[in-house]
Amino acid sequence: MDMWISEAQIPNAAMTYKIKETLVRRQTEFQDLAIVDSYELGRMLVLDGIVQTTIKDEFVYHEMISHIPLYTHSSPKKVLVVGGGDGGAIREILKHPTVEKAVLCEIDGAVIEECKKHLKEISCALDDPRCEVFVGDGIKYVHEHKNEFDVIIVDSTDPFGAAEGLFGGSFYKEIYQCLTEDGIFIAQTETPFYLPEVVKSVFNDARDVFPVTKLFMAHIPTYPGGYWSFTVGSKKYDPENPDFSGKVDIDGLKYYTKKIHSAAFTLPKYVEDLLK
Amino acid sequence: MDMWISEAQIPNAAMTYKIKETLVRRQTEFQDLAIVDSYELGRMLVLDGIVQTTIKDEFVYHEMISHIPLYTHSSPKKVLVVGGGDGGAIREILKHPTVEKAVLCEIDGAVIEECKKHLKEISCALDDPRCEVFVGDGIKYVHEHKNEFDVIIVDSTDPFGAAEGLFGGSFYKEIYQCLTEDGIFIAQTETPFYLPEVVKSVFNDARDVFPVTKLFMAHIPTYPGGYWSFTVGSKKYDPENPDFSGKVDIDGLKYYTKKIHSAAFTLPKYVEDLLK
Repeated sequence: MDMWISEAQIPNAAMTYKIKETLVRRQTEFQDLAIVDSYELGRMLVLDGIVQTTIKDEFVYHEMISHIPLYTHSSPKKVLVVGGGDGGAIREILKHPTVEKAVLCEIDGAVIEECKKHLKEISCALDDPRCEVFVGDGIKYVHEHKNEFDVIIVDSTDPFGAAEGLFGGSFYKEIYQCLTEDGIFIAQTETPFYLPEVVKSVFNDARDVFPVTKLFMAHIPTYPGGYWSFTVGSKKYDPENPDFSGKVDIDGLKYYTKKIHSAAFTLPKYVEDLLK
Repeated sequence: MDMWISEAQIPNAAMTYKIKETLVRRQTEFQDLAIVDSYELGRMLVLDGIVQTTIKDEFVYHEMISHIPLYTHSSPKKVLVVGGGDGGAIREILKHPTVEKAVLCEIDGAVIEECKKHLKEISCALDDPRCEVFVGDGIKYVHEHKNEFDVIIVDSTDPFGAAEGLFGGSFYKEIYQCLTEDGIFIAQTETPFYLPEVVKSVFNDARDVFPVTKLFMAHIPTYPGGYWSFTVGSKKYDPENPDFSGKVDIDGLKYYTKKIHSAAFTLPKYVEDLLK
């Protein structure tokens, strides 16, 4: 018997994957959580039927959501990840020697627990002494911490349902206040090909709050369309043209390079037009 | 009853699309040809079960395979397209005012015929007086024409079965001779994510023949992984850093810009490493 899972994020165009086995499937307090082992992409974390990350392509998302802001900031010391319970962003953040503390604020403790069990390649840094794991509401956490983080990474699920409050102007104002005076915010902001209106509205919300707001793209094969946007809001630094002087090279990266850092901000015409 | 088609180009990871209707399905002399109308992407040309082009995302492929070489060459006058029976590359080529003649050499006349009937948005330039349509074998055509074309575009299906002869060193040597002394060759060369060995071997074959060989990437949502490579072989011009002086701006493009032209050659680390 062949087992396949089908992801219906886009109503009339699905990605399907042949599966070896289901390692865990449970209803948590917040969502339907599954970790399955696929033939083509290795183990996958699936939340509410949407593939969040896979062993084979997670490097693209986690490197780009982490190294773009951390190479942009001159000396990031304290970093907050909202969401990101798989630990992939934390793993990348801790590769920067300036980082003294990385806080993970994930609302669903079950995601952390299962990823620590079944996705060790991704969650491996969650036990690092510089990492502090906090299970709770990111909106509340951000509200209660002012002027504290150099970088805030919103590594959330899609802006429908549970994660809806992590997108939009009122949360971005809270993020702004939670950041230090030269702080940087980044969020995954969906696909301009299938969801142009979402990308546009989230970008405009961030632009209303941050002095410098830019969007870059990365290629993530297991996300719909394979082409994903990230929005960066910055109080001071230009994320497109960072000052790399004094920055270490990090060994072992598979997607990020200093050259791709800037090139990722060069947008195809239809994405440029969306942001006008 | 819901109708879906499923594309099995990657054995254990498929794309599936919900279909309104099948406009044509026939066995031609060379392949299984279908044109279907999908809910999400509009009409699609499907050859031997593989989606070749769709109304919604064809602009990416056709703009990038055409405008990269045509903006690189200082004054392209004669252009050859091998394959490309849908006419999309011809449509883009004829937007360049220097072009006097664009030859389409497609082995399967049925592709041209059905695309002219059912994909008019793509095939619309095939009746242009500057376009000459030739139904026949591209390998033979290239062999019989020496020192004739400023740009040759190999717009083929995948390098398995019918199109296999359009990839590899012996064909690239023929291409070299078919080009004028400052000629440029370009081909679609698959996905580095799912088929790294194919990308590597095709690139090395081209590098053995051309003084300047470079690879660039474009995101094409309906191709596996959404991330596609193109290899450019050039006798003289550097395709990554073209001289745009004297070049017209083309109105109405949706992907290509002069900025994205160069940025597309900046590769993620894992693709860079493939080509070492």
